[in-house]
Amino acid sequence: MAIERNKLRWNGWGWTAHKDALAGREEVWAWLAQELGMPSLLATPARKLEDANLPRPQLAPDLRARLVAIVGPEGVRDEPYERAFHALGRSYHDLLRLRAGDLAQAPDAVVYPRATEEVLALLSLASQRDIAVVPYGGGTSVVGGVSGNRGAFPALITIDLSAMDRVAEIDTLSRTAAAQAGIYGPALEAALAAKGLTLGHFPQSFEFSTLGGWIAHRGAGQGSNAYGRAEDWLAGAKLATPRGLLDTQTFPASAAGPDLLSLIAGSEGIFGIVTEATLRLHAAPAASDYRAYLFRDFASGAAAIRSAVQEGMPSTMLRLSDADETRFYRAFARAGQSATLKSRLEQAYLDARGFGRQACALIAGIEGEKPVVASAASYFAQIARKLGALPLGRGQGGRWLAGRYHGPYLRDPMMDRGLGVDTLETATSWSKLDALYAAVRAALDAAMRETAPRPGAHGVVLCHISHSYSDGASLYFTYIFPRALGGELAQWQTIKKAASDAIAAHGGTISHHHGIGEDHLPWMAQEKGQLGIDVLRAVKAALDPKGVMNPGKLIP
Amino acid sequence: MAIERNKLRWNGWGWTAHKDALAGREEVWAWLAQELGMPSLLATPARKLEDANLPRPQLAPDLRARLVAIVGPEGVRDEPYERAFHALGRSYHDLLRLRAGDLAQAPDAVVYPRATEEVLALLSLASQRDIAVVPYGGGTSVVGGVSGNRGAFPALITIDLSAMDRVAEIDTLSRTAAAQAGIYGPALEAALAAKGLTLGHFPQSFEFSTLGGWIAHRGAGQGSNAYGRAEDWLAGAKLATPRGLLDTQTFPASAAGPDLLSLIAGSEGIFGIVTEATLRLHAAPAASDYRAYLFRDFASGAAAIRSAVQEGMPSTMLRLSDADETRFYRAFARAGQSATLKSRLEQAYLDARGFGRQACALIAGIEGEKPVVASAASYFAQIARKLGALPLGRGQGGRWLAGRYHGPYLRDPMMDRGLGVDTLETATSWSKLDALYAAVRAALDAAMRETAPRPGAHGVVLCHISHSYSDGASLYFTYIFPRALGGELAQWQTIKKAASDAIAAHGGTISHHHGIGEDHLPWMAQEKGQLGIDVLRAVKAALDPKGVMNPGKLIP
Repeated sequence: MAIERNKLRWNGWGWTAHKDALAGREEVWAWLAQELGMPSLLATPARKLEDANLPRPQLAPDLRARLVAIVGPEGVRDEPYERAFHALGRSYHDLLRLRAGDLAQAPDAVVYPRATEEVLALLSLASQRDIAVVPYGGGTSVVGGVSGNRGAFPALITIDLSAMDRVAEIDTLSRTAAAQAGIYGPALEAALAAKGLTLGHFPQSFEFSTLGGWIAHRGAGQGSNAYGRAEDWLAGAKLATPRGLLDTQTFPASAAGPDLLSLIAGSEGIFGIVTEATLRLHAAPAASDYRAYLFRDFASGAAAIRSAVQEGMPSTMLRLSDADETRFYRAFARAGQSATLKSRLEQAYLDARGFGRQACALIAGIEGEKPVVASAASYFAQIARKLGALPLGRGQGGRWLAGRYHGPYLRDPMMDRGLGVDTLETATSWSKLDALYAAVRAALDAAMRETAPRPGAHGVVLCHISHSYSDGASLYFTYIFPRALGGELAQWQTIKKAASDAIAAHGGTISHHHGIGEDHLPWMAQEKGQLGIDVLRAVKAALDPKGVMNPGKLIP
Repeated sequence: MAIERNKLRWNGWGWTAHKDALAGREEVWAWLAQELGMPSLLATPARKLEDANLPRPQLAPDLRARLVAIVGPEGVRDEPYERAFHALGRSYHDLLRLRAGDLAQAPDAVVYPRATEEVLALLSLASQRDIAVVPYGGGTSVVGGVSGNRGAFPALITIDLSAMDRVAEIDTLSRTAAAQAGIYGPALEAALAAKGLTLGHFPQSFEFSTLGGWIAHRGAGQGSNAYGRAEDWLAGAKLATPRGLLDTQTFPASAAGPDLLSLIAGSEGIFGIVTEATLRLHAAPAASDYRAYLFRDFASGAAAIRSAVQEGMPSTMLRLSDADETRFYRAFARAGQSATLKSRLEQAYLDARGFGRQACALIAGIEGEKPVVASAASYFAQIARKLGALPLGRGQGGRWLAGRYHGPYLRDPMMDRGLGVDTLETATSWSKLDALYAAVRAALDAAMRETAPRPGAHGVVLCHISHSYSDGASLYFTYIFPRALGGELAQWQTIKKAASDAIAAHGGTISHHHGIGEDHLPWMAQEKGQLGIDVLRAVKAALDPKGVMNPGKLIP
């Protein structure tokens, strides 16, 4: 296994040993309290594993023996750490429950198959013997995609793919690779880099998520403008189902009827388990240019992105923070430091040039062959100049790259201090983007005020355009708020519902790249239509007639 | 209706008034006979409509009245020309049957709905009253996609969408348009051109095919390298089914579960009828550069295309003819002309430089903003130079553009002279392309010899790479052969089976852009796997429980 799971947090993000960047920085907490209208932030530590409520495993001994017969004794695990680690994903409300020691959803056993044939045998057994199955890659779902929901079944196993992490074949001529689905991001990219290739799929969870998970939830990496989304780079897949193997052939394109791969991408384990996939690759980029710009407002920044993508400019990432996100991260970095003469002069200069409270930072990242990168970078600089933006150079771009996977680590210390932190995302057409942005911001703000633990307290809403297309873009919201201690799940549900209703009412998709899981179920009927839901149910019935696969996810 | 259907051939291609370029050119026929090992080519004229066998319509009067109640009296047509026009598509073997006056598959009535609601009412009625339905756009299918197959149903109606040809909305900011599915190519492009936009979908059938047809068979236009395939530009669709309307929302991208649009694209009318679609558009190109090159052989030409697409060079079309296609079209154009001193000198010069019998012509087409076109054209010229190709300039590129829709018109005069002409196409990865190419060529050649009407007679096989991707390319085969008069359908089946078996055995898809229809059914189980077929059947059962939609197509 390429990753040492026992060094990962079972109730938080990433490596246990990761240094807490906020430890001892009381000036940051004081500033944050003030931003949220709170007098102070109290310590709210998490329970230890040994104090958690972990139910006894429910698996009958003969069933356990059958599992062992398939995957070997090492492949069936039911010690507390394993079961706790796999109980839930890593969403904000997952962490609320894990930190409270609520492990009611822990699986009865975690099973580690080593080959597609073993997965097929496991699913056939589960279907015959009424065992619910949760497929599990890295477990980083933030939408309840791997919650240990057993539906109406008496037992639940989690099938963890992380022992299936081999790159089976790299076709350098066709620029494709076949790999097992349990491979983690870094191991996959290392194998490809050895051949001068890259998949280019770098979600924020890159270090802790797997190929199969990216496909199952239809993900998009931060560089998807250049490298595509999961459904774009997915060229072929083996889907193990309770009824056998669905093995799509791999073609560059085909008109042989509907595309079954597009049913597999985004299927979130409800039809079966992706065990192997063939991927479209790119040459490892020879050059890379990440630089920042400051736009006068969100509209002009968005217009720059729209121009670039509609005019066919090659880009890897065009990320525009709104004014609040721009100011928040700037202030966060400087919290507790008294303003220096230099910083005051800088701000005065920016104000004088019209870059005041509405100013928005944009990072333009371009990767590829050297001449292509140089010409695209200069093309974007021209677009930005025409729209009155201020070039900030490469420093901020480089800092963003260096910290691209660090954001989720900040959530744990915040949760230790009575705060809630969650993210959500959507996408819509360019013509609906402004209204959607305003509506979701307003909904989040109102719901956080309404559910605040004390009068006058409130949250902050940060947003950026994260991915862009010729016909529209995605909006990624981060919201931070003081927790209503004791009523935290209800508070989260109120906020989530307000935002999701606003998304659905303003022409946004309920998810651009996080997926549906359990959290977005209430909006699926509107998203797909009743007949669309019927179609998904029919596909599920054809592949998983007993309904053992990942109960309670994706289909309402 | 934007097109005058009564001016189109019911048993051939395109406008009745189109001038026959081969009329009276006996020197061409003599040359062609020689190429095929035949002493001469006899006249084999088609039957007239009044001499054809057209069965009496089977629709009960009360059902006809119900149809009239939905679409009005003008919308229900059952005169001979209407029924004959809609009996079959326009494949080679469709024409064999039509020209022989075999109209056994003519529908009982042709119905012209004017709105989605009318289509829904028609499908609901058909499902209740056991009427088979063939959805019909332009009717140019070359794979039996619109054959009047009534399955086990007593009656058959064809639903012709051509009265639904309105562009409902153009969103210039998001570069999308919503249009009714029955709009023909030229009318759609004219409406978009008025806003400075283009869909860029230009299949060879462009003048005579419709938006809905392009989506239903998952088509690719000649410029798909730049403008994408139907499944790429399709942003949203209304699918009218016997169970009601499946109305996908339109998003630039979504992770809300499997993509239902990818089930609709390529569904060939077996789930329902696409009545309206939202399309991703491009700016009408400011510049265009089509120029030809001569490569020493197929391998070096293919390598040039592979380099261009893998290095991300913007291209609209990169079309490489194999050596036989290169020579055939050159000789065809000069047939009967004695070689001039100039042409002999040219050939001597080419031979001396290594461009002999293996030489392959490539047309590189690039469209877009002026600087992009200029830089891509020069980029490709560099690639070609490195691979030893000879630049032939813009003349041949311009001639190709001028004649891009004319090819199918040559089939009718050839069929009048005892010849068979058919095309087929496939796609595979770059690493399998050579073997697939050789196998299909060999299979076609052997089957045409085996079924030739006399010893020593044979066919010609022409091939080009028509569409290219980072991971592979499509191969488009044209084959011309002397007909085995009296046993023509069996001859065609033998040839088609040999080629299709070779495709399936060598990792090709059974269709890259023509679709499945009736003709490719025998290879679908291998293409999709048995479980994949089960999935498609389950979707069909969910949307069309009685199975009235386009019987006998797509699903074996």
